[in-house]
Amino acid sequence: MQKVNSLILDRLQSEVSLIPELARHLIAAGGKRIRPVLTLLAAKLCGYQGERHVALAACVEFIHTATLLHDDVVDESDLRRGRSTANAVWGNKAPVLVGDFLFSRAFMMMVDDGSLRVLQILSRASAVIAEGEVEQLVTANDTSSTEAAYLHMIASKTAALFEAAAQVGAVVADRPMADEEALATYGRSVGVAFQLVDDALDYGAGKNLGKTVGDDFREGKITLPILLAIARGSSEERAFWTRCMETMEQEEQDLERAIGILHRHDAIDDTIRRAESYCAEAKGALARFPDSPARQALLDLADFAVHRAF
Amino acid sequence: MQKVNSLILDRLQSEVSLIPELARHLIAAGGKRIRPVLTLLAAKLCGYQGERHVALAACVEFIHTATLLHDDVVDESDLRRGRSTANAVWGNKAPVLVGDFLFSRAFMMMVDDGSLRVLQILSRASAVIAEGEVEQLVTANDTSSTEAAYLHMIASKTAALFEAAAQVGAVVADRPMADEEALATYGRSVGVAFQLVDDALDYGAGKNLGKTVGDDFREGKITLPILLAIARGSSEERAFWTRCMETMEQEEQDLERAIGILHRHDAIDDTIRRAESYCAEAKGALARFPDSPARQALLDLADFAVHRAF
Repeated sequence: MQKVNSLILDRLQSEVSLIPELARHLIAAGGKRIRPVLTLLAAKLCGYQGERHVALAACVEFIHTATLLHDDVVDESDLRRGRSTANAVWGNKAPVLVGDFLFSRAFMMMVDDGSLRVLQILSRASAVIAEGEVEQLVTANDTSSTEAAYLHMIASKTAALFEAAAQVGAVVADRPMADEEALATYGRSVGVAFQLVDDALDYGAGKNLGKTVGDDFREGKITLPILLAIARGSSEERAFWTRCMETMEQEEQDLERAIGILHRHDAIDDTIRRAESYCAEAKGALARFPDSPARQALLDLADFAVHRAF
Repeated sequence: MQKVNSLILDRLQSEVSLIPELARHLIAAGGKRIRPVLTLLAAKLCGYQGERHVALAACVEFIHTATLLHDDVVDESDLRRGRSTANAVWGNKAPVLVGDFLFSRAFMMMVDDGSLRVLQILSRASAVIAEGEVEQLVTANDTSSTEAAYLHMIASKTAALFEAAAQVGAVVADRPMADEEALATYGRSVGVAFQLVDDALDYGAGKNLGKTVGDDFREGKITLPILLAIARGSSEERAFWTRCMETMEQEEQDLERAIGILHRHDAIDDTIRRAESYCAEAKGALARFPDSPARQALLDLADFAVHRAF
């Protein structure tokens, strides 16, 4: 990871000084770096001995950072990782363009790597992420959207990059397709679990991690906890959700009331339980690999995706 | 071009219907399609007989459309090609994400093409475009910025894609590096000429093309006409430019006054003259190729970039 971090700082360079300045704001803020870690560990799991996984892990983090920059513009968020978002500091314009730069730079690094298979996996993931983000935009504020639509959306907007990040580790190690697919499954399941927990955390589940509670609520984002509560709720509660999330007429006590309703219907705990079952699926996908420190680390990482906040 | 157009419509498909809907709004609006035409003609000029140039021309148009979508968000423009911009219709969110989708889809198509050289040229161009857009953001509202900085910026934000589009034509035809470079020079020069004329048109040069006059002025964008007028102007005029473009305190008659000052200093005609000299440079770069219909079309296209509005 040290090599990945220094490569990231190196490849952020540009004649245009605002670019590294703005990108560093986000990248230096730390974050969990889960996605590049996936690439590194998957490569190790597959017995890879070279150095290509370092640059590809940096690519994965660049793509992730680009989507975060665009996401915050789209969400009009003010906080990310406990710090001001780039758009809160620089306005909307620079983050859109710096995101584009990071995205292009990631592709340049993949081209330097030279594997068309890697390029295929990561360009497809990027397109799927964008589709997932648009899906989220379309289903936001729609209290009649379904659990299936929600799972499809998070599989795209979040899990696709986890999946690609892990899969790429098998590709550099030149492993058979079955290993690639097992790692893709592992990554996808960890990604879904991660997003489910994220959505639960937004309603104050577990410990606070510098995340503002209630962001999703204030934006009218329909996540799994809400969908479960709507399905299990009274018609009075449904009217409450429609007012808050669709017509977006929120009053001061509404977030508190929402959290109360979610707990009453076990919606948050059930969301965490779904995450646990994706976590188990992820670990199961690693069964075909012999035990090793990398395998143990991936098993731990799957647990961390679910239990990080508890 | 018919093949390119139907491929574009085909590859806009997505399960998420807002994506083709929004992208079609812009792509179907027509536009001049200069960049994909460059790829097609460059390939023909190089004697290419296959079909790869069609998909790559579509990639070039996708990258261009993605930058337009992000550009309009950044500029907060309401009109593009005489129609409402996507952000004016859908808000800022969807155009950012659909731009990302188009960009990723373009890379998927390049990966399908399978040439790392093409991927290298177009990923580098994309990064340079983003850098140029950030440069524009940084120098906007800065009346002390230089002509050199302006030319560097338009070489990046506009000419880089013209350059790459033409160069790729030589790559598919597997021509020697000298031919690639000649076509790159041709494309770059046409791109600079095109942008110079665009900047002149924004102050009402030539015929109206559905472009709103004064957009750049209202946004405080410092373009070559302004830089020439500032260099040649009185201190009273400099105070005028500072007020309008830096402190952005614009009054009703200011655009008219600005146009008057520009004409008094020949700033618009001189901008067109610079464009003509880039146009001549572009044509000169084609001298090494034998005469052919494709060569004649490229010569005409260079003229069109300058004279389209007159």
